[in-house]
Amino acid sequence: MLVVLEKGTTEEGVQAIVRIIEKRGYTARPIPGGDRVSIGILHNKGSVDAAHFLGLDGVKEVIPVTKPYKLVSREFQRENTQVKIGDAVFGDGTMPVIAGPCAVESLEQVLSIARSVKKAGALLFRGGAFKPRTSPYSFQGLGEQGLKFLSTVREETGLPVVTEVMDVENFDLVEAYVDVIQIGTRNMQNFSLLRRAGRSKRPVILKRGMSAMLQEWLMAAEYIMEEGNSNVILCERGIRTFVRHSRNTLDLSVVPAAKKESHLPIIVDPSHAAGVRDQVIPLAYASAALGADGQMIEVHNKPEEALSDGAQSLYPDQFTAVMKKMNAIRSIIATANGNNE
Amino acid sequence: MLVVLEKGTTEEGVQAIVRIIEKRGYTARPIPGGDRVSIGILHNKGSVDAAHFLGLDGVKEVIPVTKPYKLVSREFQRENTQVKIGDAVFGDGTMPVIAGPCAVESLEQVLSIARSVKKAGALLFRGGAFKPRTSPYSFQGLGEQGLKFLSTVREETGLPVVTEVMDVENFDLVEAYVDVIQIGTRNMQNFSLLRRAGRSKRPVILKRGMSAMLQEWLMAAEYIMEEGNSNVILCERGIRTFVRHSRNTLDLSVVPAAKKESHLPIIVDPSHAAGVRDQVIPLAYASAALGADGQMIEVHNKPEEALSDGAQSLYPDQFTAVMKKMNAIRSIIATANGNNE
Amino acid sequence: MLVVLEKGTTEEGVQAIVRIIEKRGYTARPIPGGDRVSIGILHNKGSVDAAHFLGLDGVKEVIPVTKPYKLVSREFQRENTQVKIGDAVFGDGTMPVIAGPCAVESLEQVLSIARSVKKAGALLFRGGAFKPRTSPYSFQGLGEQGLKFLSTVREETGLPVVTEVMDVENFDLVEAYVDVIQIGTRNMQNFSLLRRAGRSKRPVILKRGMSAMLQEWLMAAEYIMEEGNSNVILCERGIRTFVRHSRNTLDLSVVPAAKKESHLPIIVDPSHAAGVRDQVIPLAYASAALGADGQMIEVHNKPEEALSDGAQSLYPDQFTAVMKKMNAIRSIIATANGNNE
Amino acid sequence: MLVVLEKGTTEEGVQAIVRIIEKRGYTARPIPGGDRVSIGILHNKGSVDAAHFLGLDGVKEVIPVTKPYKLVSREFQRENTQVKIGDAVFGDGTMPVIAGPCAVESLEQVLSIARSVKKAGALLFRGGAFKPRTSPYSFQGLGEQGLKFLSTVREETGLPVVTEVMDVENFDLVEAYVDVIQIGTRNMQNFSLLRRAGRSKRPVILKRGMSAMLQEWLMAAEYIMEEGNSNVILCERGIRTFVRHSRNTLDLSVVPAAKKESHLPIIVDPSHAAGVRDQVIPLAYASAALGADGQMIEVHNKPEEALSDGAQSLYPDQFTAVMKKMNAIRSIIATANGNNE
Repeated sequence: MLVVLEKGTTEEGVQAIVRIIEKRGYTARPIPGGDRVSIGILHNKGSVDAAHFLGLDGVKEVIPVTKPYKLVSREFQRENTQVKIGDAVFGDGTMPVIAGPCAVESLEQVLSIARSVKKAGALLFRGGAFKPRTSPYSFQGLGEQGLKFLSTVREETGLPVVTEVMDVENFDLVEAYVDVIQIGTRNMQNFSLLRRAGRSKRPVILKRGMSAMLQEWLMAAEYIMEEGNSNVILCERGIRTFVRHSRNTLDLSVVPAAKKESHLPIIVDPSHAAGVRDQVIPLAYASAALGADGQMIEVHNKPEEALSDGAQSLYPDQFTAVMKKMNAIRSIIATANGNNE
Repeated sequence: MLVVLEKGTTEEGVQAIVRIIEKRGYTARPIPGGDRVSIGILHNKGSVDAAHFLGLDGVKEVIPVTKPYKLVSREFQRENTQVKIGDAVFGDGTMPVIAGPCAVESLEQVLSIARSVKKAGALLFRGGAFKPRTSPYSFQGLGEQGLKFLSTVREETGLPVVTEVMDVENFDLVEAYVDVIQIGTRNMQNFSLLRRAGRSKRPVILKRGMSAMLQEWLMAAEYIMEEGNSNVILCERGIRTFVRHSRNTLDLSVVPAAKKESHLPIIVDPSHAAGVRDQVIPLAYASAALGADGQMIEVHNKPEEALSDGAQSLYPDQFTAVMKKMNAIRSIIATANGNNE
Repeated sequence: MLVVLEKGTTEEGVQAIVRIIEKRGYTARPIPGGDRVSIGILHNKGSVDAAHFLGLDGVKEVIPVTKPYKLVSREFQRENTQVKIGDAVFGDGTMPVIAGPCAVESLEQVLSIARSVKKAGALLFRGGAFKPRTSPYSFQGLGEQGLKFLSTVREETGLPVVTEVMDVENFDLVEAYVDVIQIGTRNMQNFSLLRRAGRSKRPVILKRGMSAMLQEWLMAAEYIMEEGNSNVILCERGIRTFVRHSRNTLDLSVVPAAKKESHLPIIVDPSHAAGVRDQVIPLAYASAALGADGQMIEVHNKPEEALSDGAQSLYPDQFTAVMKKMNAIRSIIATANGNNE
Repeated sequence: MLVVLEKGTTEEGVQAIVRIIEKRGYTARPIPGGDRVSIGILHNKGSVDAAHFLGLDGVKEVIPVTKPYKLVSREFQRENTQVKIGDAVFGDGTMPVIAGPCAVESLEQVLSIARSVKKAGALLFRGGAFKPRTSPYSFQGLGEQGLKFLSTVREETGLPVVTEVMDVENFDLVEAYVDVIQIGTRNMQNFSLLRRAGRSKRPVILKRGMSAMLQEWLMAAEYIMEEGNSNVILCERGIRTFVRHSRNTLDLSVVPAAKKESHLPIIVDPSHAAGVRDQVIPLAYASAALGADGQMIEVHNKPEEALSDGAQSLYPDQFTAVMKKMNAIRSIIATANGNNE
C-alpha cells in the first residue's frame, strides 16, 4: 500500500499520518519523491484497507501494491490446479464441455438431451433444479424432483451432473444428489453460501458476478478455499455493459488475466452471455481458441418449448457440429498455449 | 409483448409463429405494418418471457410492452406507500435521515455516535453487526454482540435501529434485535433472503444491486411484497461504471424514475456511492434537493480509526452542519415536489 | 510512476529493467519491499507512459503516481478560474444558467424562448445551429442562418449566446457570430478541434465525452489551455452506463472530484443526461444543491413540436418555476460550499 | 414506432396524441390492447425520433420497431460487401491480417517490421503518422514524414498501407499517400470527418467508438455510405467497461451481431482492446475462430523501445507463430461459418 501525500505536506503532516498508520499495527516508511512524499505501508498480513487512509488530511491518493488474495494466487501456487470430475480434468490443458438444458423440465427431457450431448462428447451434464429468476412469477425449477431426475441421468449415462445451489438451506439436499455445485452469478458475493461451499466435498463452479472485477471474483474463490475446498472452477458468463445487441458482454480477456493471477481453472459459458443462439456458436469457437479450461453450453431438445432460456439453447444437432469444430480448434491451440505459459 | 418478424416473412411463416405462441396459452394477433408484420401477444397473466420467441425462424426482435411487476407498480397502487418507523415516515414528502457508523465496533462507539446524530436530527440509527466483505480476511462485524449494542442504543436514545442481514440463517436473530432489516447490494437478487424478508414483520430497506436495472430492482421488491410484507424502502447506493474518481456512480435519475414506476419510497445512501467524505456532503445536498424520501449517511466519531469505510464517514460536527443545510433545502423543495407529482 | 516487479525477480532482472527505464531518460530508483521490489521513476517531465514498461519480463504492474496534466491542475493554480461572460461569472460561487432550445428552428422561436428565459433569470442563451446527429437523415441544424438568428437574439435581448461547433472548417464562421463556443460530447477528443478552440478568443464549454474518465476530460481541457485559451468551462452531461431508465447517467460525483483536481469551473447539463422532462427538473435542483458552477438547461416554447430533443425540454413556465427554486437552494448552499473548500 | 399510453387514458387523450403524430406528417393507428392502448406510427420515411413523443401527457413509453439505417442494412443488401485491397478481400470468408507498429517512428523501423510481417503472411501494413493522444505532451506522430515512410514501405514490399486520419484538414494529404483510411475510435462520431471519408475513393476502416452501441456505429457507417463510398470495413477494438484487468473489453459478440444487421465486413483489433501482449495472442486466436473478416494486430521490432503502445505489440517472432495458428484455426472455421449464415 502506498499512501501518496499532497504536494507541500509539511514534515509534521507526514509524521501525523505515519502515526495513524502505525497505530493500526503496520510499519510506515516515508518515500520522498521529486515534489511530494509517499508513505509505504509494510509488514501487513492480509490486505490493508485503502479506506482507512483515504480522506485523511494531506492524503491525495492510496494505491494498493500487493493483491489481497492468497490461496487463489499464482504467487502462492505456481502450478495449475487440476479439478478431476469423472472423465474430465479442468486445468490440464484440455477443454471438457458441460452441456444440458437451462432447467430440468422432465425426466424424458433430461435423458434425451443427456444421451445426445454425451454422444457428441460432453463430459458432464448440467440442468437447473432451483432457478434464480428475476421475477417471482417465472418458473422456479422442479426442486428436489429435478435433482432426482439428474441422479437418474448420471445412473443412465454415467455423466457427472452439475446444478446450481441458490441458498444454504438447500445445500445439503443438492450436495446429496449432484457431483458438482454451481454458484450462480447473483450469488458470487453471497458470503454465507461461499463458506458453505468451502465446507463441501464437491467441486464448485463459481460464476462471475455480473459486474465483478477480477479481484472480487478471486476473493470470492478465496472464501471457498479458505474453508478448505480447493476444487474451485471459475466460470466467465458475461458482464453487464451498456451494450444491447447481446444479453451480456462476454469478457474473454478475463481468461488469460485470471490464469495469470490465479492457478484455478477457468471455463466459459457462452450461452448466458450471448442470450441468442446465433451468437453462442461463434463465441464457443472463440472460447475454444482462447484456451479456456472448459465450457458450459446450453442444449435443449426442443428450444422453442423450453421453460427457460430457449433462445440461447442449441439444438442437439448444432451441438454435435459445434463439438467437432471445437475439438479441431483445440488440437491446434494446445501447442500455442504451451508457448504462452 | 410484440414479436417483430423479418421483412418478407410469408403468410405461412407468420402462422407458424402464431401457433407457437398459442401453444403456450396466449392469444396472438398479427399486426401488418408498412413493410413487415408484427404479432401482438395478448391475454397473458404475469409477464411473457421474450426468450421463448427470440431465435425462432423469422423473428427479428421481441419487444416487451407491459412491465412484469404488479404489486410494486404505481399502476397497481397510485398513492405513495408510507413506511412509518418511530418518528420517521418514508414516503410522505419528508426526508428522514438514518445515520451511524458502517460497522458496530463497541458500545461506547455506537452510543456516542447515536447521541450526536440524534441531536443533529437523525430519526434512525444504523450500524453493521454482520458485514459483507470482499475479503475473508477483513473485519466481519461483531455478530450478535453488535446486535446487543444496537438494542442498547435504542433503549438509551429511543432511535429505532437498522442493520444488514446477510443470510437466512441469521434472519431470526437479527429480526429479534432490530427495527428495520437492510438487504445489501450484493444480496439484491438473493431470492431466498428476499422471500424470508417478505415473511418478516419488520420494514425492509432494499439496496440496489451494483449493476441492477430499475426493473430488476423492482422485481426484487416484488419478491418481498409477494410474500406479504409491503413495508419496503428502496435505497439507491451507486452503480458500477467505468468511472474511477468515485467508488460507485450515484444514479440520482433513478429516484424520479422509480417514483414514476412504483409507489414505494426511495432513499439515497451517498456514503457508499462516493467512498470519500469530500463527495458525500455535496451528494447529500443533491439528494435532498432531488426529492429523495430519505437518506442514509455514515457518521463515525473517529473516522481515522474506523474498522470499515472510515474514508466515507462524516465527523459528527460535519453531520450536524449537513443536516441543517439539508433541512433548509428540503423546505424549499417540498413545494416543488408537490408540483411534479 | 511505480514499476512493481514479480516476486522473486533476481537482482539482474531488476537491473535489466532499471537500464530500460534509464535508456528512456528517466531516473530509476529501486524500492525493496517485504516480498518484492518496486522501482520508482523519477525526474520525468510531463507524464510517463505506463505502456512502456507493462509487459516487460518481470514487471507485474505499473502504477502512475502523479497526474499527467499541468495547466488544468489545481496543484498548478490553487484559486478557481473565473470565466466572465456578460453578466455571468462561472467559478465565483454563483450558478449562472444557460438556457434555450436544443436546435435553432426559426427567429420567432429563438426570440420567444430567449425573452422568457431572460425574464426567468437565465444569463446566457443556447441554441444549436450545427447539430451532431446519430443519423444522417435527422435534422442537421440551420447552419449559418441559425447563427444569424442567434446574433439577433443577442442584439434584441442582450444575452450572450452559446452554440456548438462541430468541426474546424466551420470554426471561424461560428466564432464570428457567437460569444461562447461549445465542444460537444462526441468531439471531446477531437484533438484538432480542441487545438483550434485553444487559439480562439472565445470562452469554451467543453462537454464530457460519453465514456470519458475525469483524467481524460481534464487532458482534453489541457489541449485547449496549452494553445493559450484559459477560459475553459467543463460541462458534465451524463455518461453511458448499463442503465435504461434515463438516456445517460448524470455523474454528479464528478463535480466535487473535478473541483478537487482542477481550478476550472464545472457546470451541469441535466437535460441531455435525463432525456425526459420529469427527470430534468429534480436533477436541476440536485445540481444546484451540489454546488455546480452553472447549469445548461433546455427550454422550448413548444416542446411537442421541437425538431430535436423535445422530450427533455422544459416549458417556459416550468423553467421559471425551476429558476426560482434553484436560486433559493443556491442561497442556502453558498455558505455550505464555503465550508467545503 | 409504437407509442404506448398510460393505463386509463381516455378516448380524448388518445385522440390528442394522434393529432400530434399526424401534425408531424405520419399516419397514426391506435391499437387497443388488454388494459391499455398503443398507437402505431406508419408511413414514416427514414426514422422517427422517439423524443418527439416521449414526455407527452399520457405517453408511457415509445418503442422503435424498425431500425433507422438503410444503406448499411442487410435488409437493404443481402450479400456481404467485399472490400478488395491488394491481395486482401474483406468479406469473402477469408481473414486478411493488417499488421504493423502503433506509430511510424523511422524508415528502418517500418521497413524492418513490414518485411517480417509480410513474410509471416500479413496482407496489409499499418502504422500511425498522426496519433490521437490523450495528452498533448505525448508523441503525436511524425506527420507527413511518416506518410512518406509508409509510401516507401508499399514500394519496397508491395503491401498496401493503412493509416489513421484525424481531421478533415489533413485528409487530402493522407489520402494521397496511403491505400486505406482509418477513422479512429475517438472520431467515430466526427460527422464532418465521416462525410469527407464518404467522398474519398479509398476504402475506410471505421473503428467502433469506445462506448458506441452497434446501432450508432452502423449509423456512422451510414454517413460514409450516404456520401457514396461503399468500401467501409467495421473494426471492433474494445469497449469501455468497469473492468480493470484489460485496457478495454473486447466485445466479440458484436461480430455476429453486426453481420446479422449489416452486409459490411467486420474485423477485430485485439491489440488495442487488450493493451498487454499476454492477452493479445489468445484474443487473436479467439477472433479467428469467431469468424471475423480480418484482424489488425500491432507488431514492433523492439516493443520495449516503442514510442507508443509497446506493451501491446507482438515481437515479430510471436507474430509469425500467431499467424500460423490463426490460419490453421481459420481453415477449420471456414466451413462452420458457412453453416451459420
